Amino acid sequence: MTTEVKLSPRERLLEAAATLAYQDGVGIGVEALCKAAGVSKRSMYQLFESKDELLAVCLKERSSAFVATLLPVADDGRSPRERVLRVFERMESQAGTPEFRGCRYLAVQIGLKDQGHPASRVAQQVKAGLTAFFRTEAERGGASDPDVLARQLSLVFDGAGARAETGADKLTGLIAPMVTTLLDAAGMR
Amino acid sequence: MTTEVKLSPRERLLEAAATLAYQDGVGIGVEALCKAAGVSKRSMYQLFESKDELLAVCLKERSSAFVATLLPVADDGRSPRERVLRVFERMESQAGTPEFRGCRYLAVQIGLKDQGHPASRVAQQVKAGLTAFFRTEAERGGASDPDVLARQLSLVFDGAGARAETGADKLTGLIAPMVTTLLDAAGMR
Repeated sequence: MTTEVKLSPRERLLEAAATLAYQDGVGIGVEALCKAAGVSKRSMYQLFESKDELLAVCLKERSSAFVATLLPVADDGRSPRERVLRVFERMESQAGTPEFRGCRYLAVQIGLKDQGHPASRVAQQVKAGLTAFFRTEAERGGASDPDVLARQLSLVFDGAGARAETGADKLTGLIAPMVTTLLDAAGMR
Repeated sequence: MTTEVKLSPRERLLEAAATLAYQDGVGIGVEALCKAAGVSKRSMYQLFESKDELLAVCLKERSSAFVATLLPVADDGRSPRERVLRVFERMESQAGTPEFRGCRYLAVQIGLKDQGHPASRVAQQVKAGLTAFFRTEAERGGASDPDVLARQLSLVFDGAGARAETGADKLTGLIAPMVTTLLDAAGMR
């Protein structure tokens, strides 16, 4: 027998927002969110100022899981080159699962269009963190131009997210060799 | 004095759909579309079955302009390698203009989420056409694996669109050198 953990209305709303926004996009209505969470609209508006705020908080809370899943821990003994490659290997293996629908943060930014939206701002921070990780590793690995390499790797990350999300590519065998080529060209160790 | 060309209600609706969807995303309402076009809802529904159909037709009609702007004409005397690079140079120069908001087709696919939506289907066709162009040039240019190279180039194209659209990167000095690296690694002439 499993012990059921009872989630609070706040947690249920955050869970519903994460699931529905990922599946159906940022256009999901308050009605649908409350229904999925089993929470009244009144309660929702007592807990969150707006749907926009709910979405922003949900992305923010999930960002640590995103980082933990994709980025290697500090001082793992791997070379900067291996640490960068690992991000893309993980992404490629995620893309193989049926529930994968690309990058949650990219989808929010493109779906909302408005880069000043609270949820877009969270997504920007998460993505900027990823670019900063690439930048640090590029510098440590002696890349010829760490800024340009970090921008290239971020582009590959978002491109892979976009291709997977639109069903255009399953990514298998695609991104790790591509990243290897870019790392080689930058002289990255 | 300029001669004003009077657009038909159909043309005005297509124009409004193109502009509003590009600026504000696919979530734009019928109300806003009709207002921008100066057309009654009744007329809209006489001309188009639904907003979805309007969006699909608008993307379809614009696809020839997309192809004409980005893809070089056949037999232009350039090498396959130069022809591929040209696509990215054009994209990079477009990204420098203030009205640029990334790739219209990618935004529709990510914004709609539903890959079976008539507008998503149009976007898929346009993108498949681009990949086919890359594939043909890769083969002509003697790339070691034309399929993989075409997938890589498509990923760079969508990644560049996504980075520009989210305001994360202006693309300047980024994509042409990156594509050059990939073409070199594939042994493309």
